[in-house]
Amino acid sequence: MSLLVVGTVAFDTIETPFGKAEMVLGGSGSYIGWSASYFQRNINLVSIVGDDMPAEELEQMQARGIDLEGLEIVEGKKSFFWAGRYHNNMNSRDTLVTDLNVLADFDPILPEKYKASEYIFLGNLTPAIQSSVIDQVEAAKFVAMDTMNFWMDVAWDELMATIKKIDCIIINDEEARQLSKEYSLLDAAKKIQTMGPKYVVIKKGEHGALLFGEGENMFYAPAMPLATVKDPTGAGDTFAGGFMGYLSKCDEVTFESMKTALICGSAMASFCVEEFSLDKLKEIHQEELNLRLQSFKQLVDFKL
Amino acid sequence: MSLLVVGTVAFDTIETPFGKAEMVLGGSGSYIGWSASYFQRNINLVSIVGDDMPAEELEQMQARGIDLEGLEIVEGKKSFFWAGRYHNNMNSRDTLVTDLNVLADFDPILPEKYKASEYIFLGNLTPAIQSSVIDQVEAAKFVAMDTMNFWMDVAWDELMATIKKIDCIIINDEEARQLSKEYSLLDAAKKIQTMGPKYVVIKKGEHGALLFGEGENMFYAPAMPLATVKDPTGAGDTFAGGFMGYLSKCDEVTFESMKTALICGSAMASFCVEEFSLDKLKEIHQEELNLRLQSFKQLVDFKL
Repeated sequence: MSLLVVGTVAFDTIETPFGKAEMVLGGSGSYIGWSASYFQRNINLVSIVGDDMPAEELEQMQARGIDLEGLEIVEGKKSFFWAGRYHNNMNSRDTLVTDLNVLADFDPILPEKYKASEYIFLGNLTPAIQSSVIDQVEAAKFVAMDTMNFWMDVAWDELMATIKKIDCIIINDEEARQLSKEYSLLDAAKKIQTMGPKYVVIKKGEHGALLFGEGENMFYAPAMPLATVKDPTGAGDTFAGGFMGYLSKCDEVTFESMKTALICGSAMASFCVEEFSLDKLKEIHQEELNLRLQSFKQLVDFKL
Repeated sequence: MSLLVVGTVAFDTIETPFGKAEMVLGGSGSYIGWSASYFQRNINLVSIVGDDMPAEELEQMQARGIDLEGLEIVEGKKSFFWAGRYHNNMNSRDTLVTDLNVLADFDPILPEKYKASEYIFLGNLTPAIQSSVIDQVEAAKFVAMDTMNFWMDVAWDELMATIKKIDCIIINDEEARQLSKEYSLLDAAKKIQTMGPKYVVIKKGEHGALLFGEGENMFYAPAMPLATVKDPTGAGDTFAGGFMGYLSKCDEVTFESMKTALICGSAMASFCVEEFSLDKLKEIHQEELNLRLQSFKQLVDFKL
């Protein structure tokens, strides 16, 4: 089965209490694609970059099974750029710069061969772009999306129209509360389900993630307690990438398979934050990943 | 095996967005004792009240297997009183009144029969009182304690002397960070272990609890997502009560048994917050408890 990913491929400049990384690879599409590639090597990436994106970065992605026919390279323009500084607790950050650059004109036209993709993940872009991608896909088995508070503020109607078309939404707790206008995450999930998606995944950062399915179905994936978190950038996208990578590979959309997918997402996110940018994400060994997954099992395993 | 509990039996006046409860039963000893009684009916309570504590409350405790020979009743004085108001998110609160009353003179002398108690839980009292109780016990198999930021600020040396004598500390994340001067909870736990306790339990409120044992041993108990949290008062003590109740009943101090104990604590805490004061805690049916424990199993169970 193939996984279609729509997201940014960009440059980040990141400051955390552990140091600074300047003009490093970032963007939701990069994190999602790389993360998913540990489970699925049939990935179609839809994105846009300027002519400043190093060919080496793109070649590395292709070597991971990430098809780039859907990546538009705009000559004479720059890639999307974000700069941010994290506070001491790593839970909050200030955005210092957001240069849309090529992203301002992003209006993805899917390559013909992408239209048969069965699993779709729409990174955090305008609801209009997300909706347009859904409409171009012909045979989707499972469509999931991310979004953010900003779109709830400025594009509520478009967001509602997009959410209506999807199977699963993956957002953080703050976003779930704003979207649902409910404080309890249980109530928030139930309310969001009435907007369209059968499945709601609520990410709580260092506190793990919750999956809500039909009826009383509920699952909790912990975050792995870590001694060092160097850079939380992209952890949420990495989580979504691991989730979608596993799900599309096992090709079984059930609550059971989604539970395992959530753990895969948590495991990938636990690697992501260990180093700046995608430094760790690019060089995880299979054995290391297997061990981390087993650690998650041990972390929550108990006898009654 | 018997469980010795030291803690307050008191009155609370509580305001939450769901209402107000005036002069209701509260106190760490009440929550710990009631919670533990669902697992263990051989509980020795060491506490102090004024002559204003209704006999009915005390009789109800005795009917749950909570021995009150160690409960001092001071004629002509009032019981400890606390009043607080929770903010809308229920995660923070303002203390409106703290009247120590009888607690100001609390200097517990253990009844002779209590001295053979094998499992000891020291609720949040002065480190000096906690230490004195440990010294009076003769045959402790497992000693655990709670504490708070206040004692770290005003009685650091006494606190260190007490912590050195115990097997397990049960505190919240903020307290663990202040005690260890480490931000990462993993680092915090390792540091606290060097102060004495082999086991460190870090409560994260609505985000669950972590248990750290020897070496790499680590376990995470989730909190049950709930639609309604009416009153969080006593949830931490209730958690500790369920933990100690289970552990003392199964009488096996291993990492395995402590994992189950942590889940028992989480289950009890999930009931506690459903109603004001001990209203729910006093009337949980065994079948209801079994179902809740199973729900915890389902919440984190996944296949790799």
